Amino acid sequence: MKHASPQPFEKAFPQTNHPDLPPSAASLINNRVITVEEAEQLIADSLETLPSETVSIEDALGRVLRETLRADRNAPPFNRSTFDGIALSYAAIEQGRSAFPITGTAFAGSPRLSLDDSNACVEIMTGAPLPDQADCVVKVEDLDIVDGTARIREGTPLDRGHGVHPEASDCQAGQVLLEPGCQLTAKELSIAASIGKAELLVSQIPRISIFTTGDELVPIAAQPLPHQIRRSNDLALDSALASTGYVQTRRFHILDDLKETESVIASILEQSDIIILAGGISKGKRDFLPEALETAGVSKSFQWVAQRPGKPLWFGDYTINDRKSYVFALPGNPVSCFTCLHRYVLPALDQLCGLPARAPQYAKLKSEFQFKPPITLFLPVLIEYDANGQTWAEPLPFNTSGDYISVARTQGFIELPQNETQFVSGSAHRFRPWQT
Amino acid sequence: MKHASPQPFEKAFPQTNHPDLPPSAASLINNRVITVEEAEQLIADSLETLPSETVSIEDALGRVLRETLRADRNAPPFNRSTFDGIALSYAAIEQGRSAFPITGTAFAGSPRLSLDDSNACVEIMTGAPLPDQADCVVKVEDLDIVDGTARIREGTPLDRGHGVHPEASDCQAGQVLLEPGCQLTAKELSIAASIGKAELLVSQIPRISIFTTGDELVPIAAQPLPHQIRRSNDLALDSALASTGYVQTRRFHILDDLKETESVIASILEQSDIIILAGGISKGKRDFLPEALETAGVSKSFQWVAQRPGKPLWFGDYTINDRKSYVFALPGNPVSCFTCLHRYVLPALDQLCGLPARAPQYAKLKSEFQFKPPITLFLPVLIEYDANGQTWAEPLPFNTSGDYISVARTQGFIELPQNETQFVSGSAHRFRPWQT
Repeated sequence: MKHASPQPFEKAFPQTNHPDLPPSAASLINNRVITVEEAEQLIADSLETLPSETVSIEDALGRVLRETLRADRNAPPFNRSTFDGIALSYAAIEQGRSAFPITGTAFAGSPRLSLDDSNACVEIMTGAPLPDQADCVVKVEDLDIVDGTARIREGTPLDRGHGVHPEASDCQAGQVLLEPGCQLTAKELSIAASIGKAELLVSQIPRISIFTTGDELVPIAAQPLPHQIRRSNDLALDSALASTGYVQTRRFHILDDLKETESVIASILEQSDIIILAGGISKGKRDFLPEALETAGVSKSFQWVAQRPGKPLWFGDYTINDRKSYVFALPGNPVSCFTCLHRYVLPALDQLCGLPARAPQYAKLKSEFQFKPPITLFLPVLIEYDANGQTWAEPLPFNTSGDYISVARTQGFIELPQNETQFVSGSAHRFRPWQT
Repeated sequence: MKHASPQPFEKAFPQTNHPDLPPSAASLINNRVITVEEAEQLIADSLETLPSETVSIEDALGRVLRETLRADRNAPPFNRSTFDGIALSYAAIEQGRSAFPITGTAFAGSPRLSLDDSNACVEIMTGAPLPDQADCVVKVEDLDIVDGTARIREGTPLDRGHGVHPEASDCQAGQVLLEPGCQLTAKELSIAASIGKAELLVSQIPRISIFTTGDELVPIAAQPLPHQIRRSNDLALDSALASTGYVQTRRFHILDDLKETESVIASILEQSDIIILAGGISKGKRDFLPEALETAGVSKSFQWVAQRPGKPLWFGDYTINDRKSYVFALPGNPVSCFTCLHRYVLPALDQLCGLPARAPQYAKLKSEFQFKPPITLFLPVLIEYDANGQTWAEPLPFNTSGDYISVARTQGFIELPQNETQFVSGSAHRFRPWQT
């Protein structure tokens, strides 16, 4: 057989200690296997909201607002017609009048007219300001117009204010419309546009560096040797981040080499708010990342989480020029990596940007499921929405492959808690969708 | 009062007739108020899938696959270790052996080793090929390694195949992995990467032109006069399209002028797969779009749908250079426009790209709701996911404002069918989320 010099495994575990604690105490804290909830809390406690910046409203889609937006004037700014028709004084109708000479036409975008003769009417278009003294709009469908006189068809239901969208009924000048922490989707941008906010104060976009490691990985276009596979984790991470709006990413692929790992890590610390590493963090002899991160001055928070997949999950932070940044070292196994991205990194990015946590979603197990180990299970599922408003999760036949092929048809994963082993059909569990 | 020359409303309704039918028959078909379901069907029947194109995998996120992807080799391509530990022959364990001299180290990315001595072992790293003759991996956590010999701790559960991800267990060479019509999200791209597809055949991106009309609308940065409002529909439409991945858009704003409307429409027919118009399609005297579209040779399918909001909804198509394109003229009212975009245009864009319809979602009414008119109601709702896997929809207090301020806090709308008037608490209805 081919021979490689054996080395004891003990050397593969460099102790990465907290700088402020004696080695033994630090090991107790951050070499322990912690729970999913502890990991989540440690991350949340560590994160500091990113600085803000001013951007054009045209570049603000998906960004997180960092200022309060108030109405600059009443909305609508005038009594606005909601139909095409005629505007008149309802008092005339109360007096039994049904035919009204047309004395003018009010178009949207033209200055407000005045209805001086309360027995006459003004033609009016949808969106136009109601003339002074008018308080009712009759739809064109309810009219017969002949020779400049509009006659209201019998039986047309009308009242004072009919067809009028009153001034200030949506909001009054000065009213708060959007608050800091709100994500700017299409409708929020439309609100900002309506009050003239051509520029908006938003959170900076996090600068993300994606690292993958592994001697066995070759580029997509390469023909792999029998013992090699093509690299896909970096593209998957980048794509999931982009799908969520986190588009400021750079990718690096590192061979399993301590010096190269240290050198690349050192070179990007200052330019990253988040560094995402995939692979190289487990207990293998060429898992150089823990050592390289320590050398770079990254302070480890934890390294092991009681979960499947993704037990080897490393989190830490560092500060350069008074700006705190964060390192997530995810497992190299594709599905583990992808799952931990969704479970930990995407929520952390949201928090960094000042977004509140997304509303949790739950799904009911479609079939019974057993899982004995005392750890949290992230279980990829096929989702079905039934016509009764219930969400059902069908677990995939469990396998340990960790390949994307196995999860291609799934829409996300449910989280089965650590302290249970039997999960009955119909029980509901937290569901997290894959970003698409 | 200010005076504008009155014109009878009759002139505001140009008859846009189907060219192949006598005017009266055409009016019967496409001037009738049709149901939501009829509108949906007419649109679906009209649409033809866009041509395909080849793009780099780096540009393929969100695109729709138009080819079948098959595994180029087995996955995994070799028996793969799922742990860091030692690889050995399980037969030796069956014979009672628990200590194994280490004769080599198998790294991920190194060629496969061979285990010639069935009483020895090879150190192995996660992802490395299992040596020939080895069929079991013992985790490093279950070992004591001293002086080049690995000793398995007592009570370690093991069997043949433990820690081995067998060759071809994810898929065999030639197996279909992804089929045409699949949307390329992160996980599909990862699968494509793993089989070496650096380029992918996908649907072309639809070229979308967004038109808004209205003399009353001024730019975001302008200070509107009392009778003016700022333009926000085009930004909202563009943003919602971009959020859904439809990024190839251009925007035009047209004044309420027939000549300008005709001129701009004519200029963009050839460069658009979809033209979205907002406003100018109702019964107002300056609603020039129906006439301009007819002049441009756009064939009307329908103009009125029995729905609120959005009764004036115009749909048609035209063919230039053997390529069919489509026109949606949405109401100018912001919420009507936004609702019709989500209800009709976004599904149409999906269909154009070859995507199957998205799985319908349903939500339960949180409180009773009445709606008398015999039309379909699209009701903006606040969504709550309860811990039992149910989705609840709380209707907004109903108003006719049509302003985004009124729907800012909603997550989408439910669809209340035309033939019912009483909607009891707990009844479930189709829910469509706003794109975010």
